Amino acid sequence: MIAELVTIGDEILIGQIVNTNSVFLAKALNKIGVEVGQITSISDQKEAIISTLDQARLRADIIIITGGLGPTNDDVTKHCLCEYFDDHLVSNASVLAHVEELFEKYVSTPISEKNREQANLPSKATLLENKFGTAAGMWFFDKGTVFISLPGVPFEMESIIENEVLPRLQEQFVLPSIFHKTILTYGLGESAIAERILDWENALPEDIKLAYLPSLGRVRLRLSTKGQDLSVLENRVNAQIEKVLPLIKDIYYGAEEEKPIEVLIADRLTEKGMTLSCAESFTGGVIATRITAQAGASNYFKGSAVTYSELSKIKILNVTPDLIATHGVVSAEVVEAMAKGAREIYKTDYAIATTGNAGPTQGDLDQEVGTVFIGLSTPYEVFSFKFSMGNSRTRVIQKSVNQAFEILYQELIKK
Amino acid sequence: MIAELVTIGDEILIGQIVNTNSVFLAKALNKIGVEVGQITSISDQKEAIISTLDQARLRADIIIITGGLGPTNDDVTKHCLCEYFDDHLVSNASVLAHVEELFEKYVSTPISEKNREQANLPSKATLLENKFGTAAGMWFFDKGTVFISLPGVPFEMESIIENEVLPRLQEQFVLPSIFHKTILTYGLGESAIAERILDWENALPEDIKLAYLPSLGRVRLRLSTKGQDLSVLENRVNAQIEKVLPLIKDIYYGAEEEKPIEVLIADRLTEKGMTLSCAESFTGGVIATRITAQAGASNYFKGSAVTYSELSKIKILNVTPDLIATHGVVSAEVVEAMAKGAREIYKTDYAIATTGNAGPTQGDLDQEVGTVFIGLSTPYEVFSFKFSMGNSRTRVIQKSVNQAFEILYQELIKK
Repeated sequence: MIAELVTIGDEILIGQIVNTNSVFLAKALNKIGVEVGQITSISDQKEAIISTLDQARLRADIIIITGGLGPTNDDVTKHCLCEYFDDHLVSNASVLAHVEELFEKYVSTPISEKNREQANLPSKATLLENKFGTAAGMWFFDKGTVFISLPGVPFEMESIIENEVLPRLQEQFVLPSIFHKTILTYGLGESAIAERILDWENALPEDIKLAYLPSLGRVRLRLSTKGQDLSVLENRVNAQIEKVLPLIKDIYYGAEEEKPIEVLIADRLTEKGMTLSCAESFTGGVIATRITAQAGASNYFKGSAVTYSELSKIKILNVTPDLIATHGVVSAEVVEAMAKGAREIYKTDYAIATTGNAGPTQGDLDQEVGTVFIGLSTPYEVFSFKFSMGNSRTRVIQKSVNQAFEILYQELIKK
Repeated sequence: MIAELVTIGDEILIGQIVNTNSVFLAKALNKIGVEVGQITSISDQKEAIISTLDQARLRADIIIITGGLGPTNDDVTKHCLCEYFDDHLVSNASVLAHVEELFEKYVSTPISEKNREQANLPSKATLLENKFGTAAGMWFFDKGTVFISLPGVPFEMESIIENEVLPRLQEQFVLPSIFHKTILTYGLGESAIAERILDWENALPEDIKLAYLPSLGRVRLRLSTKGQDLSVLENRVNAQIEKVLPLIKDIYYGAEEEKPIEVLIADRLTEKGMTLSCAESFTGGVIATRITAQAGASNYFKGSAVTYSELSKIKILNVTPDLIATHGVVSAEVVEAMAKGAREIYKTDYAIATTGNAGPTQGDLDQEVGTVFIGLSTPYEVFSFKFSMGNSRTRVIQKSVNQAFEILYQELIKK
């Protein structure tokens, strides 16, 4: 089964928003064995919508349309679907009751005719209930193709997908399994890797696809395949990985987990019953942000002292002015003192600290743009590493935070 | 001039990455008067690429293709372009010299044949220099349509767009101006607004397009138009905004600035020569992250005490245990004490503080999921507001950070 995603609305075409809905949809569909063949973003013009649907149905079994279901004049999806399926709108009693209830509970202004019209759906549509909003989801089956129309508001769309769309697709179709596995390598460019594993790559079975994904100092190798039985797929992919490992053992860093590293860290800390804090200089709170984005973070995370000035490093983290004067604020000595300070003031088992120059200019720092130190204070020792992270401010911060998580995670799985 | 963007690679189709390249490209093209008509993401299969190009050229004047230019076997774009334009690869001496130089300077492994092949370009392509990588950009002009092929690595693509593509498009074509203006409203739903301004909307000139953009407690109204003379467009849109303002004056919040609010705050603090710090509980460092994402933040930002535990609020921010026992940790009293504490320990003019329950469960907090307090300590006073931000953890955090910035900004422009 092949799906296509169609996003309606000018926001994406003028670069006003990032298309995160597609990421959610693609992942959710892949998980139940539906492959996404194409993602198309178009304007909310009737001609564009109809010609896109005409073309998509030639290629796909399932077409998921998001956006254009609001109550205002720039929302045209329902009218287009009526025209496309030669249909007309009828008021749906259960949606109307739901819209009225939402207004009564959450909206201070009285309900209007426009709001009630949200309950008017094409007569051929099967309702996909939207618990969180007034724009109902719709399911059409037309000459062998499923058309699904969903609101563009991410959390409304996501809940309809999970509660209505996925169960229905799994019930109505026999779906294969899709299996991806990604392994991480550090320290070698993609072409050098390709050269090393050339014979192995050429001998891969036709239905196992290899992709090279280079990014920020590492190359990920993704193997993908599909078939009926997930465990068979998994075994076949793992067998190929066993074969390639001897060729890349010096750069192999493990399989990419489904979970982001901050979740692996959370799991490990929870398992050990241990706690974490941070002292962040140039990373400015990004480490804390990524940790606290996880529900339940307060069980193992106590906080982060974001100290952007020398004075705050001294006053809050108890770094001595002497140490800063002798070694400079961007130094191994200072980052280790920061880590110790955070571990003490937050009373945690582990503390991670960062100091560095993220740029764009050297300012009054001794160290060049891109020079960073990452320190870790543990129940057993205090240590730090120095890195050169390049000259793009955003990338220096991102790479350093990833690196800090790697250092902490390696430490947590060691002891 | 209409452009279409074509993104090649499975990463987007399986939801492994977010398509941020499109945001950059759409904004950059809009700025020089090129409208983006469609964005298409496809797999790296030759058939998909060729049929997408065939269809895109029927609709667009300029087609920008990103991705698939790496040195490994899953990179097929160059071969497709050769087939599509009935062309062949020839080695480009200047690209070869550049690739060799990059390897000599930055790569520890010796250069390979695969790397040298990066310099092989279709003979009909005009070179678009890639300063930062080995994958050259290419420009083709075929039967009235411009085809541009760029690497998918964001900062390489961005630099080629800025240095090579935009100047060339502006030189070769007479481009119109595109003008967007977005105004902010708070406190009324989109349908209620639409009803109020119905007559005005219906009387809008044909070529001025209105879009409603509802999100997290506010509705933005975007007016878009295009024509030859930017100042004429601006005047025409502003005249329409003047007409609608009397109808929405109770909910109107100003025009959306090109700049994000954290930049407006930075400008204002710099102008006043004043400084800022934070004390963050459930926002977990997001406020600090957004502030320190700006270059030069250290001039006005001193840091944030991310205090995720009661103990750290007491030890670091000097909140008294009594105050927490009496009012609960999620309270106006505690958030104000946190703001005062941050202002003192960081020695800043302003300090903003947050405490709340972001969920997903009530845990051992007195307050319901979604209840948050935002406090501000200024040179003149300390105050706070209470909000109910709903039950989605991510949205509670996001909305609260936006709200905190609004409160601070309003305060900064008042005094």
